[in-house]
Amino acid sequence: MLATSSMSAIGKSTNIFWQECQVGKVDREKLLKQKGCVVWITGLSGSGKSTLACTLGRELHSKGKLTYVLDGDNLRHGLNKDLGFSSEDRAENIRRVGEVAKLFSDAGLICIASLISPYRKDRDSCRAIVPDSRFIEVFMNMPLELCEARDAKGLYKLARAGKIKGFTGIDDPYEPPLNCEAKALESEKKKQRREIKKLKLLVAKGQAAVTTDVSNAKEKLETCQKQLNLQEAELATTREEAKLNKIEIKQENGICPSSFSMAGQVVGYLEEKGLLQE
Amino acid sequence: MLATSSMSAIGKSTNIFWQECQVGKVDREKLLKQKGCVVWITGLSGSGKSTLACTLGRELHSKGKLTYVLDGDNLRHGLNKDLGFSSEDRAENIRRVGEVAKLFSDAGLICIASLISPYRKDRDSCRAIVPDSRFIEVFMNMPLELCEARDAKGLYKLARAGKIKGFTGIDDPYEPPLNCEAKALESEKKKQRREIKKLKLLVAKGQAAVTTDVSNAKEKLETCQKQLNLQEAELATTREEAKLNKIEIKQENGICPSSFSMAGQVVGYLEEKGLLQE
Repeated sequence: MLATSSMSAIGKSTNIFWQECQVGKVDREKLLKQKGCVVWITGLSGSGKSTLACTLGRELHSKGKLTYVLDGDNLRHGLNKDLGFSSEDRAENIRRVGEVAKLFSDAGLICIASLISPYRKDRDSCRAIVPDSRFIEVFMNMPLELCEARDAKGLYKLARAGKIKGFTGIDDPYEPPLNCEAKALESEKKKQRREIKKLKLLVAKGQAAVTTDVSNAKEKLETCQKQLNLQEAELATTREEAKLNKIEIKQENGICPSSFSMAGQVVGYLEEKGLLQE
Repeated sequence: MLATSSMSAIGKSTNIFWQECQVGKVDREKLLKQKGCVVWITGLSGSGKSTLACTLGRELHSKGKLTYVLDGDNLRHGLNKDLGFSSEDRAENIRRVGEVAKLFSDAGLICIASLISPYRKDRDSCRAIVPDSRFIEVFMNMPLELCEARDAKGLYKLARAGKIKGFTGIDDPYEPPLNCEAKALESEKKKQRREIKKLKLLVAKGQAAVTTDVSNAKEKLETCQKQLNLQEAELATTREEAKLNKIEIKQENGICPSSFSMAGQVVGYLEEKGLLQE
Protein backbone atom coordinates (compact mmCIF):
# COMPACT_ATOMS: atom_id res chain seq x y z
CA MET A 1 0.00 0.00 0.00
CA LEU A 2 1.28 3.41 -0.93
CA ALA A 3 -1.39 5.17 1.00
CA THR A 4 -1.60 4.77 4.75
CA SER A 5 -4.88 5.30 6.50
CA SER A 6 -6.48 5.58 9.90
CA MET A 7 -10.16 5.41 10.82
CA SER A 8 -12.26 7.95 12.68
CA ALA A 9 -15.74 9.40 13.07
CA ILE A 10 -16.09 13.04 12.04
CA GLY A 11 -19.26 15.13 12.37
CA LYS A 12 -22.04 13.34 10.52
CA SER A 13 -19.58 10.94 8.89
CA THR A 14 -18.46 7.58 10.23
CA ASN A 15 -16.04 5.08 8.73
CA ILE A 16 -13.91 7.84 7.27
CA PHE A 17 -10.23 7.13 6.76
CA TRP A 18 -7.46 9.64 6.44
CA GLN A 19 -5.20 9.05 3.44
CA GLU A 20 -1.60 10.17 3.70
CA CYS A 21 0.33 10.64 0.47
CA GLN A 22 4.04 10.47 -0.16
CA VAL A 23 4.27 13.85 -1.83
CA GLY A 24 3.59 16.42 0.85
CA LYS A 25 3.27 20.13 1.35
CA VAL A 26 7.02 20.63 1.78
CA ASP A 27 7.74 18.91 -1.54
CA ARG A 28 5.28 21.15 -3.31
CA GLU A 29 6.76 24.22 -1.62
CA LYS A 30 10.22 23.23 -2.85
CA LEU A 31 8.87 22.87 -6.37
CA LEU A 32 7.20 26.29 -6.15
CA LYS A 33 9.98 28.02 -4.21
CA GLN A 34 7.46 29.58 -1.85
CA LYS A 35 5.45 28.68 1.23
CA GLY A 36 1.75 27.94 1.12
CA CYS A 37 -0.32 30.43 3.07
CA VAL A 38 -3.63 32.25 3.22
CA VAL A 39 -3.91 36.02 2.82
CA TRP A 40 -7.39 36.77 4.10
CA ILE A 41 -8.64 40.21 3.04
CA THR A 42 -11.57 41.44 5.14
CA GLY A 43 -13.51 44.69 5.16
CA LEU A 44 -16.66 46.50 4.11
CA SER A 45 -18.14 46.26 0.66
CA GLY A 46 -16.35 48.90 -1.41
CA SER A 47 -13.28 48.98 0.82
CA GLY A 48 -11.09 47.74 -2.04
CA LYS A 49 -10.70 44.04 -1.18
CA SER A 50 -10.98 42.73 -4.73
CA THR A 51 -8.72 45.44 -6.10
CA LEU A 52 -6.05 44.59 -3.54
CA ALA A 53 -6.52 40.86 -4.21
CA CYS A 54 -5.95 41.38 -7.94
CA THR A 55 -2.98 43.69 -7.57
CA LEU A 56 -1.40 41.43 -4.97
CA GLY A 57 -1.88 38.44 -7.27
CA ARG A 58 -0.25 40.34 -10.13
CA GLU A 59 2.68 41.56 -8.02
CA LEU A 60 3.40 38.09 -6.68
CA HIS A 61 3.00 36.54 -10.14
CA SER A 62 5.58 38.99 -11.48
CA LYS A 63 7.93 37.60 -8.82
CA GLY A 64 7.29 34.08 -10.13
CA LYS A 65 5.01 33.16 -7.24
CA LEU A 66 1.87 31.07 -7.67
CA THR A 67 -1.24 32.64 -6.19
CA TYR A 68 -4.95 31.98 -6.46
CA VAL A 69 -7.71 34.40 -5.60
CA LEU A 70 -10.81 33.09 -3.84
CA ASP A 71 -13.38 35.81 -4.25
CA GLY A 72 -16.41 35.53 -1.98
CA ASP A 73 -18.76 36.73 -4.70
CA ASN A 74 -17.29 34.45 -7.36
CA LEU A 75 -17.60 31.39 -5.14
CA ARG A 76 -21.29 32.12 -4.72
CA HIS A 77 -21.59 31.23 -8.42
CA GLY A 78 -20.20 27.75 -7.77
CA LEU A 79 -19.26 26.05 -4.51
CA ASN A 80 -21.55 28.27 -2.45
CA LYS A 81 -24.41 28.75 -4.87
CA ASP A 82 -26.73 26.90 -2.47
CA LEU A 83 -26.18 29.58 0.18
CA GLY A 84 -28.02 32.83 0.75
CA PHE A 85 -27.42 35.70 3.15
CA SER A 86 -29.03 34.47 6.36
CA SER A 87 -26.59 34.53 9.27
CA GLU A 88 -26.23 30.70 9.12
CA ASP A 89 -25.62 30.78 5.38
CA ARG A 90 -23.09 33.59 5.78
CA ALA A 91 -21.21 31.63 8.42
CA GLU A 92 -21.29 28.49 6.24
CA ASN A 93 -20.11 30.56 3.26
CA ILE A 94 -17.08 31.74 5.20
CA ARG A 95 -16.44 28.29 6.68
CA ARG A 96 -16.29 26.75 3.21
CA VAL A 97 -14.04 29.48 1.82
CA GLY A 98 -11.78 28.93 4.84
CA GLU A 99 -11.65 25.18 4.20
CA VAL A 100 -10.85 25.70 0.51
CA ALA A 101 -8.22 28.33 1.34
CA LYS A 102 -6.65 25.82 3.69
CA LEU A 103 -6.49 23.24 0.88
CA PHE A 104 -4.84 25.78 -1.44
CA SER A 105 -2.24 26.72 1.16
CA ASP A 106 -1.63 23.01 1.73
CA ALA A 107 -1.13 22.69 -2.03
CA GLY A 108 1.66 25.27 -1.67
CA LEU A 109 -0.14 28.28 -3.15
CA ILE A 110 -0.42 31.76 -1.74
CA CYS A 111 -4.19 31.78 -1.50
CA ILE A 112 -5.73 35.24 -1.48
CA ALA A 113 -9.23 35.14 -0.03
CA SER A 114 -11.30 38.25 -0.47
CA LEU A 115 -14.63 38.47 1.30
CA ILE A 116 -16.37 40.85 3.70
CA SER A 117 -16.31 38.22 6.51
CA PRO A 118 -17.76 40.71 9.04
CA TYR A 119 -17.70 38.54 12.17
CA ARG A 120 -14.52 38.05 14.16
CA LYS A 121 -15.41 34.52 15.26
CA ASP A 122 -15.85 33.34 11.65
CA ARG A 123 -12.46 34.74 10.65
CA ASP A 124 -10.86 33.28 13.75
CA SER A 125 -12.31 29.86 12.91
CA CYS A 126 -10.71 30.06 9.47
CA ARG A 127 -7.40 31.09 11.04
CA ALA A 128 -7.63 28.17 13.45
CA ILE A 129 -7.72 25.50 10.73
CA VAL A 130 -4.67 26.77 8.83
CA PRO A 131 -1.56 25.27 10.42
CA ASP A 132 1.76 26.97 11.27
CA SER A 133 0.44 30.55 11.52
CA ARG A 134 0.11 30.67 7.77
CA PHE A 135 -3.03 32.79 7.98
CA ILE A 136 -2.47 36.50 7.38
CA GLU A 137 -5.44 38.76 8.01
CA VAL A 138 -5.52 41.97 6.00
CA PHE A 139 -8.05 44.45 7.35
CA MET A 140 -9.18 47.08 4.86
CA ASN A 141 -9.81 49.76 7.45
CA MET A 142 -11.67 52.26 5.27
CA PRO A 143 -14.36 54.58 6.65
CA LEU A 144 -17.93 53.57 5.85
CA GLU A 145 -18.52 57.01 4.32
CA LEU A 146 -15.77 56.39 1.77
CA CYS A 147 -17.03 52.89 0.89
CA GLU A 148 -20.57 54.20 0.59
CA ALA A 149 -19.46 57.14 -1.54
CA ARG A 150 -17.68 54.76 -3.91
CA ASP A 151 -20.61 52.30 -4.08
CA ALA A 152 -19.25 50.79 -7.31
CA LYS A 153 -21.89 48.06 -7.20
CA GLY A 154 -24.76 50.31 -6.14
CA LEU A 155 -25.40 48.08 -3.13
CA TYR A 156 -25.25 50.78 -0.43
CA LYS A 157 -27.96 52.68 -2.27
CA LEU A 158 -30.13 49.55 -2.25
CA ALA A 159 -29.33 48.88 1.41
CA ARG A 160 -30.18 52.47 2.43
CA ALA A 161 -33.43 52.14 0.50
CA GLY A 162 -34.16 48.98 2.51
CA LYS A 163 -34.02 46.81 -0.60
CA ILE A 164 -31.14 44.74 0.81
CA LYS A 165 -31.49 43.61 4.41
CA GLY A 166 -28.62 42.77 6.74
CA PHE A 167 -26.07 44.74 4.74
CA THR A 168 -22.72 45.00 6.53
CA GLY A 169 -22.05 48.52 7.75
CA ILE A 170 -25.69 49.61 7.32
CA ASP A 171 -27.94 47.27 9.30
CA ASP A 172 -25.44 44.54 10.14
CA PRO A 173 -22.21 45.08 12.08
CA TYR A 174 -18.62 44.75 10.92
CA GLU A 175 -16.33 43.58 13.72
CA PRO A 176 -12.79 44.83 13.12
CA PRO A 177 -9.83 42.62 14.06
CA LEU A 178 -8.76 42.81 17.70
CA ASN A 179 -5.12 43.69 17.32
CA CYS A 180 -5.63 47.43 17.76
CA GLU A 181 -7.14 46.92 21.20
CA ALA A 182 -3.87 46.10 22.94
CA LYS A 183 -2.93 49.78 23.05
CA ALA A 184 -6.12 50.83 24.84
CA LEU A 185 -5.65 48.14 27.48
CA GLU A 186 -2.02 49.12 27.94
CA SER A 187 -2.96 52.69 28.88
CA GLU A 188 -5.71 51.48 31.24
CA LYS A 189 -3.14 49.31 32.99
CA LYS A 190 -0.78 52.25 33.43
CA LYS A 191 -3.58 54.21 35.14
CA GLN A 192 -4.18 51.31 37.55
CA ARG A 193 -0.48 51.07 38.33
CA ARG A 194 -0.29 54.76 39.17
CA GLU A 195 -3.27 54.34 41.52
CA ILE A 196 -1.65 51.35 43.25
CA LYS A 197 1.63 53.17 43.66
CA LYS A 198 -0.20 56.11 45.27
CA LEU A 199 -2.14 53.83 47.63
CA LYS A 200 0.94 51.85 48.61
CA LEU A 201 2.71 55.07 49.42
CA LEU A 202 -0.19 56.20 51.61
CA VAL A 203 -0.33 52.88 53.47
CA ALA A 204 3.45 52.75 54.00
CA LYS A 205 3.73 56.23 55.31
CA GLY A 206 0.77 55.69 57.64
CA GLN A 207 -0.50 58.97 56.33
CA ALA A 208 -3.65 57.30 55.14
CA ALA A 209 -5.13 57.93 58.58
CA VAL A 210 -4.82 61.64 57.96
CA THR A 211 -7.03 61.57 54.90
CA THR A 212 -8.88 58.28 55.40
CA ASP A 213 -8.77 54.97 57.28
CA VAL A 214 -5.68 52.79 56.64
CA SER A 215 -7.68 49.55 56.43
CA ASN A 216 -9.93 51.27 53.95
CA ALA A 217 -6.91 52.16 51.85
CA LYS A 218 -5.62 48.57 52.16
CA GLU A 219 -8.94 47.23 50.92
CA LYS A 220 -8.87 49.67 48.04
CA LEU A 221 -5.31 48.56 47.27
CA GLU A 222 -6.39 44.92 47.23
CA THR A 223 -9.24 45.64 44.83
CA CYS A 224 -6.91 47.63 42.65
CA GLN A 225 -4.37 44.79 42.62
CA LYS A 226 -7.07 42.28 41.67
CA GLN A 227 -8.24 44.48 38.82
CA LEU A 228 -4.69 44.87 37.65
CA ASN A 229 -4.16 41.09 37.66
CA LEU A 230 -7.30 40.57 35.61
CA GLN A 231 -6.18 43.22 33.17
CA GLU A 232 -2.71 41.71 32.97
CA ALA A 233 -4.29 38.40 31.92
CA GLU A 234 -6.55 40.13 29.42
CA LEU A 235 -3.63 42.07 28.03
CA ALA A 236 -1.58 38.89 27.64
CA THR A 237 -4.40 37.38 25.56
CA THR A 238 -4.73 40.51 23.50
CA ARG A 239 -0.98 40.65 23.00
CA GLU A 240 -1.03 37.00 21.89
CA GLU A 241 -3.82 37.97 19.53
CA ALA A 242 -1.80 40.90 18.24
CA LYS A 243 1.16 38.63 17.59
CA LEU A 244 -0.96 36.82 14.99
CA ASN A 245 -0.38 37.91 11.43
CA LYS A 246 -2.51 40.97 10.95
CA ILE A 247 -2.06 43.82 8.54
CA GLU A 248 -4.13 46.98 8.60
CA ILE A 249 -4.62 48.96 5.41
CA LYS A 250 -5.84 52.48 6.08
CA GLN A 251 -5.92 56.03 4.83
CA GLU A 252 -2.91 58.23 5.47
CA ASN A 253 -3.84 61.88 6.10
CA GLY A 254 -7.25 61.17 4.63
CA ILE A 255 -5.82 59.71 1.44
CA CYS A 256 -6.28 56.09 0.36
CA PRO A 257 -3.07 54.28 -0.49
CA SER A 258 -2.81 53.17 -4.13
CA SER A 259 -3.49 49.52 -4.88
CA PHE A 260 0.19 49.18 -5.72
CA SER A 261 1.17 50.57 -2.32
CA MET A 262 -1.34 48.33 -0.50
CA ALA A 263 -0.07 45.26 -2.34
CA GLY A 264 3.49 46.34 -1.55
CA GLN A 265 2.63 46.39 2.15
CA VAL A 266 1.44 42.78 1.97
CA VAL A 267 4.28 41.58 -0.27
CA GLY A 268 6.78 43.15 2.16
CA TYR A 269 5.14 41.31 5.03
CA LEU A 270 5.23 37.97 3.21
CA GLU A 271 8.89 38.52 2.32
CA GLU A 272 9.74 39.40 5.92
CA LYS A 273 8.02 36.23 7.14
CA GLY A 274 10.04 34.14 4.67
CA LEU A 275 6.93 33.00 2.82
CA LEU A 276 8.24 33.91 -0.63
CA GLN A 277 10.98 31.32 -0.51
CA GLU A 278 10.86 27.55 -0.13
CA MET B 1 -10.46 49.85 -11.00
CA LEU B 2 -8.22 46.84 -11.46
CA ALA B 3 -11.04 44.42 -11.02
CA THR B 4 -13.92 44.44 -13.44
CA SER B 5 -17.26 43.14 -12.34
CA SER B 6 -20.73 42.29 -13.59
CA MET B 7 -23.89 41.67 -11.59
CA SER B 8 -26.14 38.63 -11.60
CA ALA B 9 -28.49 36.52 -9.49
CA ILE B 10 -27.29 32.96 -8.82
CA GLY B 11 -29.25 30.29 -6.95
CA LYS B 12 -30.12 31.67 -3.52
CA SER B 13 -27.79 34.64 -3.96
CA THR B 14 -28.64 38.01 -5.40
CA ASN B 15 -26.42 41.04 -5.89
CA ILE B 16 -23.42 38.88 -6.65
CA PHE B 17 -20.73 40.31 -8.87
CA TRP B 18 -18.16 38.41 -10.85
CA GLN B 19 -14.60 39.67 -10.31
CA GLU B 20 -12.15 39.26 -13.17
CA CYS B 21 -8.46 39.44 -12.34
CA GLN B 22 -5.56 40.37 -14.54
CA VAL B 23 -3.54 37.25 -13.81
CA GLY B 24 -5.44 34.39 -15.38
CA LYS B 25 -5.28 30.65 -15.81
CA VAL B 26 -3.00 30.86 -18.84
CA ASP B 27 -0.44 32.95 -16.91
CA ARG B 28 -0.40 30.42 -14.09
CA GLU B 29 -0.03 27.57 -16.58
CA LYS B 30 2.97 29.32 -18.13
CA LEU B 31 4.51 29.69 -14.70
CA LEU B 32 3.91 26.01 -13.93
CA LYS B 33 4.70 24.70 -17.43
CA GLN B 34 1.62 22.50 -17.36
CA LYS B 35 -2.10 22.73 -17.99
CA GLY B 36 -4.63 22.77 -15.20
CA CYS B 37 -6.95 19.77 -15.29
CA VAL B 38 -8.94 17.34 -13.17
CA VAL B 39 -8.11 13.63 -13.00
CA TRP B 40 -11.23 12.11 -11.45
CA ILE B 41 -10.65 8.60 -10.12
CA THR B 42 -13.87 6.66 -9.59
CA GLY B 43 -14.57 3.10 -8.48
CA LEU B 44 -15.59 0.80 -5.66
CA SER B 45 -14.15 1.04 -2.17
CA GLY B 46 -10.97 -1.02 -2.26
CA SER B 47 -10.49 -0.69 -6.00
CA GLY B 48 -7.22 1.17 -5.49
CA LYS B 49 -8.27 4.79 -6.05
CA SER B 50 -6.16 6.31 -3.26
CA THR B 51 -3.15 4.20 -4.16
CA LEU B 52 -3.36 5.35 -7.78
CA ALA B 53 -3.91 8.96 -6.66
CA CYS B 54 -0.75 8.88 -4.53
CA THR B 55 1.42 7.14 -7.11
CA LEU B 56 0.19 9.46 -9.84
CA GLY B 57 0.94 12.48 -7.65
CA ARG B 58 4.45 11.17 -7.01
CA GLU B 59 5.13 10.36 -10.65
CA LEU B 60 3.99 13.79 -11.81
CA HIS B 61 5.91 15.50 -9.01
CA SER B 62 9.07 13.71 -10.12
CA LYS B 63 8.49 15.31 -13.53
CA GLY B 64 8.30 18.73 -11.88
CA LYS B 65 4.53 18.96 -12.17
CA LEU B 66 2.32 20.45 -9.45
CA THR B 67 -0.52 18.18 -8.38
CA TYR B 68 -2.94 18.13 -5.50
CA VAL B 69 -4.96 15.16 -4.31
CA LEU B 70 -8.53 15.72 -3.20
CA ASP B 71 -9.46 12.59 -1.30
CA GLY B 72 -13.16 12.08 -0.69
CA ASP B 73 -12.56 10.67 2.79
CA ASN B 74 -10.11 13.42 3.76
CA LEU B 75 -12.50 16.18 2.69
CA ARG B 76 -15.13 14.71 4.99
CA HIS B 77 -12.85 15.83 7.84
CA GLY B 78 -13.05 19.45 6.68
CA LEU B 79 -15.08 21.04 3.90
CA ASN B 80 -17.67 18.24 3.92
CA LYS B 81 -17.77 17.43 7.60
CA ASP B 82 -21.38 18.60 7.75
CA LEU B 83 -22.41 15.86 5.29
CA GLY B 84 -23.43 12.27 5.95
CA PHE B 85 -24.19 9.38 3.61
CA SER B 86 -27.81 10.02 2.64
CA SER B 87 -28.25 10.20 -1.12
CA GLU B 88 -28.63 14.01 -0.95
CA ASP B 89 -25.53 14.37 1.19
CA ARG B 90 -23.56 12.08 -1.12
CA ALA B 91 -24.59 14.14 -4.14
CA GLU B 92 -23.67 17.37 -2.30
CA ASN B 93 -20.35 15.83 -1.25
CA ILE B 94 -19.48 15.09 -4.88
CA ARG B 95 -20.76 18.47 -6.06
CA ARG B 96 -18.47 20.30 -3.63
CA VAL B 97 -15.44 18.16 -4.51
CA GLY B 98 -16.22 18.89 -8.18
CA GLU B 99 -16.38 22.62 -7.51
CA VAL B 100 -13.10 22.58 -5.57
CA ALA B 101 -11.43 20.44 -8.24
CA LYS B 102 -12.54 23.01 -10.79
CA LEU B 103 -10.91 25.78 -8.75
CA PHE B 104 -7.66 23.82 -8.53
CA SER B 105 -7.59 23.18 -12.28
CA ASP B 106 -8.30 26.87 -12.80
CA ALA B 107 -5.33 27.59 -10.53
CA GLY B 108 -3.22 25.58 -12.99
CA LEU B 109 -2.79 22.41 -10.93
CA ILE B 110 -3.33 18.84 -11.99
CA CYS B 111 -6.02 18.07 -9.46
CA ILE B 112 -6.41 14.39 -8.65
CA ALA B 113 -9.82 13.71 -7.13
CA SER B 114 -10.28 10.30 -5.61
CA LEU B 115 -13.75 9.28 -4.49
CA ILE B 116 -16.20 6.43 -5.11
CA SER B 117 -18.66 8.78 -6.88
CA PRO B 118 -20.96 5.88 -7.80
CA TYR B 119 -23.58 7.75 -9.83
CA ARG B 120 -22.97 8.67 -13.44
CA LYS B 121 -25.01 11.86 -13.26
CA ASP B 122 -22.96 13.22 -10.34
CA ARG B 123 -19.70 12.59 -12.20
CA ASP B 124 -21.14 14.08 -15.38
CA SER B 125 -22.16 17.22 -13.46
CA CYS B 126 -18.58 17.61 -12.26
CA ARG B 127 -17.27 17.11 -15.79
CA ALA B 128 -19.72 19.72 -17.06
CA ILE B 129 -18.36 22.54 -14.89
CA VAL B 130 -14.69 22.03 -15.86
CA PRO B 131 -14.03 23.97 -19.06
CA ASP B 132 -12.10 22.88 -22.17
CA SER B 133 -12.47 19.10 -21.69
CA ARG B 134 -9.98 19.22 -18.86
CA PHE B 135 -11.84 16.53 -16.93
CA ILE B 136 -10.33 13.07 -17.22
CA GLU B 137 -12.34 10.23 -15.73
CA VAL B 138 -10.34 7.24 -14.56
CA PHE B 139 -12.53 4.22 -13.89
CA MET B 140 -11.01 1.62 -11.57
CA ASN B 141 -12.78 -1.32 -13.15
CA MET B 142 -11.97 -3.95 -10.54
CA PRO B 143 -14.31 -6.86 -9.73
CA LEU B 144 -16.34 -6.49 -6.54
CA GLU B 145 -14.97 -9.86 -5.35
CA LEU B 146 -11.44 -8.50 -5.51
CA CYS B 147 -12.30 -5.25 -3.70
CA GLU B 148 -14.21 -7.19 -1.06
CA ALA B 149 -11.38 -9.70 -0.63
CA ARG B 150 -8.94 -6.82 -0.06
CA ASP B 151 -11.26 -4.96 2.35
CA ALA B 152 -8.33 -2.96 3.75
CA LYS B 153 -10.69 -0.79 5.79
CA GLY B 154 -12.96 -3.65 6.94
CA LEU B 155 -15.95 -1.83 5.48
CA TYR B 156 -17.27 -4.65 3.28
CA LYS B 157 -17.41 -6.89 6.33
CA LEU B 158 -19.49 -4.25 8.15
CA ALA B 159 -21.70 -3.74 5.07
CA ARG B 160 -22.32 -7.49 4.70
CA ALA B 161 -23.18 -7.64 8.41
CA GLY B 162 -25.71 -4.86 7.77
CA LYS B 163 -23.80 -2.44 10.00
CA ILE B 164 -23.26 0.03 7.15
CA LYS B 165 -26.30 0.76 4.99
CA GLY B 166 -26.22 1.94 1.39
CA PHE B 167 -22.70 0.68 0.78
CA THR B 168 -21.67 0.93 -2.87
CA GLY B 169 -21.42 -2.49 -4.49
CA ILE B 170 -23.34 -4.22 -1.68
CA ASP B 171 -26.72 -2.54 -1.23
CA ASP B 172 -26.17 0.55 -3.40
CA PRO B 173 -25.29 0.49 -7.09
CA TYR B 174 -22.13 1.60 -8.84
CA GLU B 175 -22.81 2.97 -12.31
CA PRO B 176 -19.77 2.46 -14.54
CA PRO B 177 -18.89 5.13 -17.12
CA LEU B 178 -20.77 4.90 -20.41
CA ASN B 179 -17.91 4.80 -22.86
CA CYS B 180 -17.98 1.03 -23.28
CA GLU B 181 -21.57 1.10 -24.49
CA ALA B 182 -20.78 2.50 -27.94
CA LYS B 183 -19.59 -0.90 -29.13
CA ALA B 184 -22.83 -2.66 -28.21
CA LEU B 185 -24.88 -0.05 -30.06
CA GLU B 186 -22.59 -0.28 -33.07
CA SER B 187 -23.26 -4.01 -33.44
CA GLU B 188 -27.03 -3.51 -33.01
CA LYS B 189 -26.93 -0.94 -35.79
CA LYS B 190 -25.11 -3.36 -38.11
CA LYS B 191 -27.89 -5.92 -37.54
CA GLN B 192 -30.52 -3.32 -38.47
CA ARG B 193 -28.60 -2.39 -41.61
CA ARG B 194 -28.41 -5.98 -42.71
CA GLU B 195 -32.19 -6.29 -42.24
CA ILE B 196 -32.83 -3.13 -44.25
CA LYS B 197 -30.54 -4.27 -47.03
CA LYS B 198 -32.41 -7.58 -47.19
CA LEU B 199 -35.83 -5.88 -47.24
CA LYS B 200 -34.75 -3.34 -49.88
CA LEU B 201 -33.54 -6.17 -52.03
CA LEU B 202 -36.87 -7.96 -51.69
CA VAL B 203 -38.87 -4.83 -52.53
CA ALA B 204 -36.65 -3.92 -55.50
CA LYS B 205 -36.78 -7.33 -57.05
CA GLY B 206 -40.52 -7.48 -56.61
CA GLN B 207 -39.89 -10.88 -55.19
CA ALA B 208 -41.46 -9.88 -51.94
CA ALA B 209 -44.80 -10.95 -53.38
CA VAL B 210 -43.48 -14.48 -53.65
CA THR B 211 -42.80 -14.79 -49.95
CA THR B 212 -45.04 -12.04 -48.56
CA ASP B 213 -46.94 -8.89 -49.54
CA VAL B 214 -44.76 -6.07 -51.01
CA SER B 215 -46.60 -3.31 -49.12
CA ASN B 216 -46.05 -5.34 -45.97
CA ALA B 217 -42.31 -5.46 -46.68
CA LYS B 218 -42.32 -1.72 -47.44
CA GLU B 219 -43.98 -1.03 -44.12
CA LYS B 220 -41.45 -3.20 -42.36
CA LEU B 221 -38.68 -1.37 -44.20
CA GLU B 222 -40.04 1.98 -43.04
CA THR B 223 -40.19 0.83 -39.43
CA CYS B 224 -36.68 -0.53 -39.71
CA GLN B 225 -35.42 2.75 -41.20
CA LYS B 226 -37.03 4.72 -38.36
CA GLN B 227 -35.43 2.48 -35.79
CA LEU B 228 -32.11 2.86 -37.52
CA ASN B 229 -32.40 6.66 -37.49
CA LEU B 230 -33.16 6.65 -33.77
CA GLN B 231 -30.21 4.40 -33.14
CA GLU B 232 -27.96 6.56 -35.29
CA ALA B 233 -28.83 9.53 -33.07
CA GLU B 234 -28.28 7.53 -29.91
CA LEU B 235 -24.99 6.24 -31.24
CA ALA B 236 -23.86 9.77 -32.09
CA THR B 237 -24.50 10.80 -28.49
CA THR B 238 -22.72 7.76 -27.14
CA ARG B 239 -19.81 8.36 -29.51
CA GLU B 240 -19.67 11.97 -28.32
CA GLU B 241 -19.66 10.57 -24.80
CA ALA B 242 -16.90 8.13 -25.67
CA LYS B 243 -14.81 10.96 -27.09
CA LEU B 244 -14.69 12.46 -23.61
CA ASN B 245 -11.54 11.76 -21.67
CA LYS B 246 -12.06 8.40 -20.05
CA ILE B 247 -9.48 5.88 -18.94
CA GLU B 248 -10.32 2.38 -17.77
CA ILE B 249 -7.99 0.61 -15.39
CA LYS B 250 -8.63 -3.13 -15.26
CA GLN B 251 -7.07 -6.50 -14.65
CA GLU B 252 -5.09 -8.13 -17.46
CA ASN B 253 -5.48 -11.91 -17.51
CA GLY B 254 -6.84 -11.81 -14.00
CA ILE B 255 -3.87 -9.82 -12.68
CA CYS B 256 -4.11 -6.27 -11.30
CA PRO B 257 -1.70 -3.80 -12.86
CA SER B 258 0.89 -2.38 -10.43
CA SER B 259 0.25 1.12 -9.10
CA PHE B 260 3.27 2.25 -11.13
CA SER B 261 1.76 0.78 -14.30
CA MET B 262 -1.66 2.35 -13.55
CA ALA B 263 -0.07 5.75 -12.94
CA GLY B 264 1.96 5.31 -16.14
CA GLN B 265 -1.24 4.80 -18.08
CA VAL B 266 -2.62 8.12 -16.79
CA VAL B 267 0.67 10.01 -17.19
CA GLY B 268 0.90 8.75 -20.78
CA TYR B 269 -2.61 10.01 -21.44
CA LEU B 270 -1.87 13.44 -19.97
CA GLU B 271 1.30 13.68 -22.04
CA GLU B 272 -0.53 12.70 -25.20
CA LYS B 273 -3.17 15.35 -24.55
CA GLY B 274 -0.45 17.98 -24.12
CA LEU B 275 -1.42 18.68 -20.51
CA LEU B 276 2.11 18.31 -19.14
CA GLN B 277 3.39 21.35 -20.97
CA GLU B 278 2.31 24.96 -20.82
